[in-house]
Amino acid sequence: MDQRRAAEFLAFLPELAALAAAVVLPRFRAPLPVTDKGGLRFDPVTEADREAERVIREAILARYPDHGVLGEEFGNQAGTSACRWVIDPIDGTRAFISGVPTWGTLVALCEDDRPVLGMMSQPFVQEIFLGGPAGAWLLRGGEQQPLRVRQGVALAQASVFATTPEMFSPEELAAFNQVSAAARLTRFGIDCYAYCLLAAGHIDLVVEAGLGYYDIAPLIPIIEGAGGIVSDWQGAPVRSGGRVIAAASASLHTEALALLANVD
Amino acid sequence: MDQRRAAEFLAFLPELAALAAAVVLPRFRAPLPVTDKGGLRFDPVTEADREAERVIREAILARYPDHGVLGEEFGNQAGTSACRWVIDPIDGTRAFISGVPTWGTLVALCEDDRPVLGMMSQPFVQEIFLGGPAGAWLLRGGEQQPLRVRQGVALAQASVFATTPEMFSPEELAAFNQVSAAARLTRFGIDCYAYCLLAAGHIDLVVEAGLGYYDIAPLIPIIEGAGGIVSDWQGAPVRSGGRVIAAASASLHTEALALLANVD
Repeated sequence: MDQRRAAEFLAFLPELAALAAAVVLPRFRAPLPVTDKGGLRFDPVTEADREAERVIREAILARYPDHGVLGEEFGNQAGTSACRWVIDPIDGTRAFISGVPTWGTLVALCEDDRPVLGMMSQPFVQEIFLGGPAGAWLLRGGEQQPLRVRQGVALAQASVFATTPEMFSPEELAAFNQVSAAARLTRFGIDCYAYCLLAAGHIDLVVEAGLGYYDIAPLIPIIEGAGGIVSDWQGAPVRSGGRVIAAASASLHTEALALLANVD
Repeated sequence: MDQRRAAEFLAFLPELAALAAAVVLPRFRAPLPVTDKGGLRFDPVTEADREAERVIREAILARYPDHGVLGEEFGNQAGTSACRWVIDPIDGTRAFISGVPTWGTLVALCEDDRPVLGMMSQPFVQEIFLGGPAGAWLLRGGEQQPLRVRQGVALAQASVFATTPEMFSPEELAAFNQVSAAARLTRFGIDCYAYCLLAAGHIDLVVEAGLGYYDIAPLIPIIEGAGGIVSDWQGAPVRSGGRVIAAASASLHTEALALLANVD
């Protein structure tokens, strides 16, 4: 992708974030209607998910009618161009329904099925993380700050994150626990936000499993644009979600893979 | 405590939050200096902790020289009044050093050693949670919004939070896992922020262990002011930290205690 096109798409991503935020934020922390039977209906997040994807898809196709669009809610709409947008309107729906502001609206632009540009938008905290071949940036309060991973941290000193231990199979969990035991600090709970904190140089490893392609594709250009590495647990490029490791440096990636690569 | 005094102290708490934020925020997400040996020095959070407590203590004693002050960093300074302030300048230091904006500056005002008023301030997200005998409120964007727990949710439908499974002893973890297995959703990772989300009606249970008194005293008036319940795992009032359960309703508290109360 030439630089002029990449710059155009990169400028378009925050416009998509603003459109999504306008329909999602009014539903964040909205009271959940409790049913007669002591249960909860999940309408607010379901509605927010669908509305956000709808406005993003409409904006993309209005501007680039020949592009493809793949979204978590409404599936794939093929285009005639090599460009396809991948959308997870709300990554972290459990955080969302719990009121925790670490969910994000994720959008990637893929060329020939490789994510080239990516965005994570967390509109309650008012942060937009962007990445592409020219770098990665945090947009907040009218400022654009370049992101750079933290280098030179060995596994024994590293901070490792995953969304929840429940995302792992027993065998996966055993491998994750080995990484955790070798690291200095392990924390759970923040979904896509963890990958962005890795890109920003605050944490060193994210190790997850069971991801959808939507969950990770938009984050890859942010991590790589900041100098980090993303792969599956065998070290191969992530092509379809599943098991993912993001590392701040090649040496840390190698150290962690040694503990993960044997999982069948 | 009479209403006029309580209102005066309640208005003072956000002033303390602002003083703390001014010394803490410049150190949040500051690059950590990496040592020669691949380690990290923790100066930013240590400095932020000490500076925040220092400015809070100074402001309190300048205004109420006869009050006592108990802080995590500088210990106890006895007063001659029945009023004592309890300060945790940064609750959630691991979140802080990881760049996750779910840490908080906690301040309680205790009368005869019972927390009467409490505050949690998260200045990056720009939220202040306040509570006392007259209620609980979220201050954000110039607005003050009353907080109310979610009622009528049974354990089978509840969302339960804890900071990390590592905070539990094996026996405590077994009991926590029983609560978790009975609940609809379990999440880890957000420290004091979870208690505030419970007060705000977004989650239903927080079950933790190994807390310091600073960690929980400032949150009790927020939870109780919003209609929730806080106790130890035997159902007794929390007097010194340790094992804590916060529940959105009496029935949920009873359901969860039945699974926790047998831990020695």
